[in-house]
Amino acid sequence: MKSVLDLASQRFSCRSYKPNTVPPEMIEKIVEAARLAPSACNRQPWRFTIVTDPEIRRQLAREGILPGLGMTWLADAPVILVLGLKKSLVTHKVAPLISGVDYSMLDIGIAGEHAVLQATEFGLGSCWIGWINQKTTRQIVNWPPEIIPQAFITIGWPNTLPENRAPRLDIREISQWKR
Amino acid sequence: MKSVLDLASQRFSCRSYKPNTVPPEMIEKIVEAARLAPSACNRQPWRFTIVTDPEIRRQLAREGILPGLGMTWLADAPVILVLGLKKSLVTHKVAPLISGVDYSMLDIGIAGEHAVLQATEFGLGSCWIGWINQKTTRQIVNWPPEIIPQAFITIGWPNTLPENRAPRLDIREISQWKR
Repeated sequence: MKSVLDLASQRFSCRSYKPNTVPPEMIEKIVEAARLAPSACNRQPWRFTIVTDPEIRRQLAREGILPGLGMTWLADAPVILVLGLKKSLVTHKVAPLISGVDYSMLDIGIAGEHAVLQATEFGLGSCWIGWINQKTTRQIVNWPPEIIPQAFITIGWPNTLPENRAPRLDIREISQWKR
Repeated sequence: MKSVLDLASQRFSCRSYKPNTVPPEMIEKIVEAARLAPSACNRQPWRFTIVTDPEIRRQLAREGILPGLGMTWLADAPVILVLGLKKSLVTHKVAPLISGVDYSMLDIGIAGEHAVLQATEFGLGSCWIGWINQKTTRQIVNWPPEIIPQAFITIGWPNTLPENRAPRLDIREISQWKR
């Protein structure tokens, strides 16, 4: 078992996967961790489609993303978790007009990262993908109009080492302490 | 050591804290977990002010939040982590116009939840607060105009049990599996 800080250190954006499948029990625990996430007014605006079907994964890789980034590797991930957002009127449309805070996307980030950290704990690789085509993705996963796709998270057994881990800003560049 | 799923199950929105301080080494690890979070194009748009100074905590409790929710307990939390957003032009302003996805708030959610889960692992209570006054909060924590406050996370030793844990939607209500 690892600490959260260890998991945060080990996680990397994995863009190459072995063909081995991920056991359904692992996938269920990953989505369960996301389900339990906190959210503004407990609205739980997240919706998930778990895609393991190879043809639908290929479709997402081909038509679900926006052009320009060369994401053919996407179809090789044995699991693509599609994250959608279902907005509520008061919490996600009215309240942000007053506060200026977009609670709905904050909540999608929280829930999705629960999934990512649980996957990391299992030794799985994962990658957040936000450069998606919302319209075609919605069609591919058969969501009604009120659910808006926001991101994919690919999940699978890593075929690469995290050799090019993206560097982070120094703690002094991003934080101050008032004590 | 606990699994991510355990931490997700145990976390609750803690709104009552013991007066005991939180050791600085714990606070540092909590913020370090957030620092290592992934973000769109690795832009790391998050900025943190760690507030342990009692007078500034009182100020945040009094003037940093919006009216209506009765958050006097806020000043009793020994740590208030203020999360700010520094937007980059391409990733956070141009790209969302094309994709429709607000990467910046997603990233704030991811980083903040790393902090929350690390705090939970330490046995600390925490609570996301998004009903904030961005303008007064920025003044209180002395951020320049380009850093926009988005949320607080209170942290401290819980004085309550999570007796009224908010219920979650059933997994079948929020997910489908394409296999």
